[in-house]
Amino acid sequence: MSETTTDVLGIGNAIVDVLSRTEDAFLEARGIAKGAMQLIDEAQAATLYSEMGPGVEMSGGSAANTIAGLASFGGRGAFVGKVRDDQLGDVFAHDIRSIGVEFQTGAATAGASTARCLVLVTPDGERTLNTFLGASTGLGPDDVDEDQVAGASITYLEGYLWDPPEAKEAFLKAARTARKAGRDVALTLSDPFCVERHRDEFLELVRNEVNIVFANEAEIMSLYQVDNFDDALQAAKADCGLAALTRSAAGCVIADGDEVHVVDAVKVDRVVDTTGAGDLFAAGFLFGLTRGKPLAACGQLGSLAASEVISHVGARPETSLADLAKSHGIL
Amino acid sequence: MSETTTDVLGIGNAIVDVLSRTEDAFLEARGIAKGAMQLIDEAQAATLYSEMGPGVEMSGGSAANTIAGLASFGGRGAFVGKVRDDQLGDVFAHDIRSIGVEFQTGAATAGASTARCLVLVTPDGERTLNTFLGASTGLGPDDVDEDQVAGASITYLEGYLWDPPEAKEAFLKAARTARKAGRDVALTLSDPFCVERHRDEFLELVRNEVNIVFANEAEIMSLYQVDNFDDALQAAKADCGLAALTRSAAGCVIADGDEVHVVDAVKVDRVVDTTGAGDLFAAGFLFGLTRGKPLAACGQLGSLAASEVISHVGARPETSLADLAKSHGIL
Repeated sequence: MSETTTDVLGIGNAIVDVLSRTEDAFLEARGIAKGAMQLIDEAQAATLYSEMGPGVEMSGGSAANTIAGLASFGGRGAFVGKVRDDQLGDVFAHDIRSIGVEFQTGAATAGASTARCLVLVTPDGERTLNTFLGASTGLGPDDVDEDQVAGASITYLEGYLWDPPEAKEAFLKAARTARKAGRDVALTLSDPFCVERHRDEFLELVRNEVNIVFANEAEIMSLYQVDNFDDALQAAKADCGLAALTRSAAGCVIADGDEVHVVDAVKVDRVVDTTGAGDLFAAGFLFGLTRGKPLAACGQLGSLAASEVISHVGARPETSLADLAKSHGIL
Repeated sequence: MSETTTDVLGIGNAIVDVLSRTEDAFLEARGIAKGAMQLIDEAQAATLYSEMGPGVEMSGGSAANTIAGLASFGGRGAFVGKVRDDQLGDVFAHDIRSIGVEFQTGAATAGASTARCLVLVTPDGERTLNTFLGASTGLGPDDVDEDQVAGASITYLEGYLWDPPEAKEAFLKAARTARKAGRDVALTLSDPFCVERHRDEFLELVRNEVNIVFANEAEIMSLYQVDNFDDALQAAKADCGLAALTRSAAGCVIADGDEVHVVDAVKVDRVVDTTGAGDLFAAGFLFGLTRGKPLAACGQLGSLAASEVISHVGARPETSLADLAKSHGIL
């Protein structure tokens, strides 16, 4: 197999987060499902924004956060996603390029504005996502460069890409290109409601298109329509290649056929904001894989990265994850 | 005198901050004066942005931060400043309105984009400001509503308004309208380099146009071209009405003619980011004045607000200053 030029290429929605603290009552009054991601249109986004408190804008997007985390570990990352040529698009592009990630996707010059996610953080640190996909729905197969995919050790795809119709084609093109080049393809299931929307297609993906699956407890249980974690684990063992299943404070379970590891979460003093926890778990796990670490060590790297990101506001690391991992003796 | 409709009306540059952590060497390599505010044009802003690390966008602007702090204390605030009708302009308007501040200034529909300040925060927590004034230079006397000014107990003006030429006219119109209505007029000297640029006019202002002056040590020493704080204090006592002079960790000195108070700073565990320290001092001090508090208590409220804002990233309070002041027994 030829040399890789990239450790992980992420493909996902290119989103700027608008984070704001709120009370549970604010969500309840609007019937917003706490902890989940709901898609909203431009008018709904405008209404919700006008009703919520002051915000902080930070680059986000699930796969983009993962690639940012990978870069913080010292990995070679690339990202494919669609912004518009507007101020928030500039912010997104700047932030990801400034940490050394390759980001070449052309910005849309017309149509909807750059995607925004209104992130409502309740006092318990839980985040509830309200996403206006905007320009990110313009991602299509032409945005996927086959050489770039073939040069990446792992291509990492977010399940959220299944929401905008064109992006699905980009997803499948990337997955097939990577497999043809003998590379790994990873998928995160993203969100239980997202799984609900696309269950049959996701089952098809985990069985035939991807060989590494990331999911949290709710997502994997939704995928297999079971009501307890162990049943979901057994199903994933039979169905998926490598599955990395996260369980918040209960740590994670890594299953690769009959090889199963149960890895503890890294404890944090206070959960400030869970935004990006799953994304950063994937960052650490994927970085470990690209460095040939054993699966349990990959899980530890993921847990460590998740613990860093939930200790502060925002979905991207505030400190060098490479240094953090060294100080924990796991790099 | 008629009833007031507003406690403090702030007039200033309407700016969105882009905060980014950096090393001292980054500033040194570019000859940027640490701790100061330098004005940059659009091309310089683009270059610096492309060279700096990932950022976090938060509404800023000196007087706007002060009014946000006043609102957090429970005061009735209003703000006048110019954005463009772009995404960052929407962010600015949303953030200040969402905390109950009246903000009615029409956005520019052409010309430069909303003002941005590239805030570089070094490991010691010091902030260095690089401001592209953009649309805020479009503020002019027509944006000042005489009824709104006459209805405000205090009109608060930032010295930075002396940089864009049209804004100066807005400043003077507001100051004269307020005085004619028998209200107070406050000025912050903003920055030692700003004082350097406009010293003669600032001396004229403190002597004849405003009756409350805020300055830090470097600014007041620059105004009077003296090399120690006490000489500056004596000059201010002779020249200004009420002077609130801040000295970072050394607290503040409040002088009103022969009445002089020396108030200690509120200690913080760790200075994370000094952005907004002076702005929030002014917020607490002005709130105290509008509530008829003695001058020393006004200084304590200012010190408390400053201590909150330097304990986290960003120039606006993250917690209710009213609650914080109550918990400290000073409200």
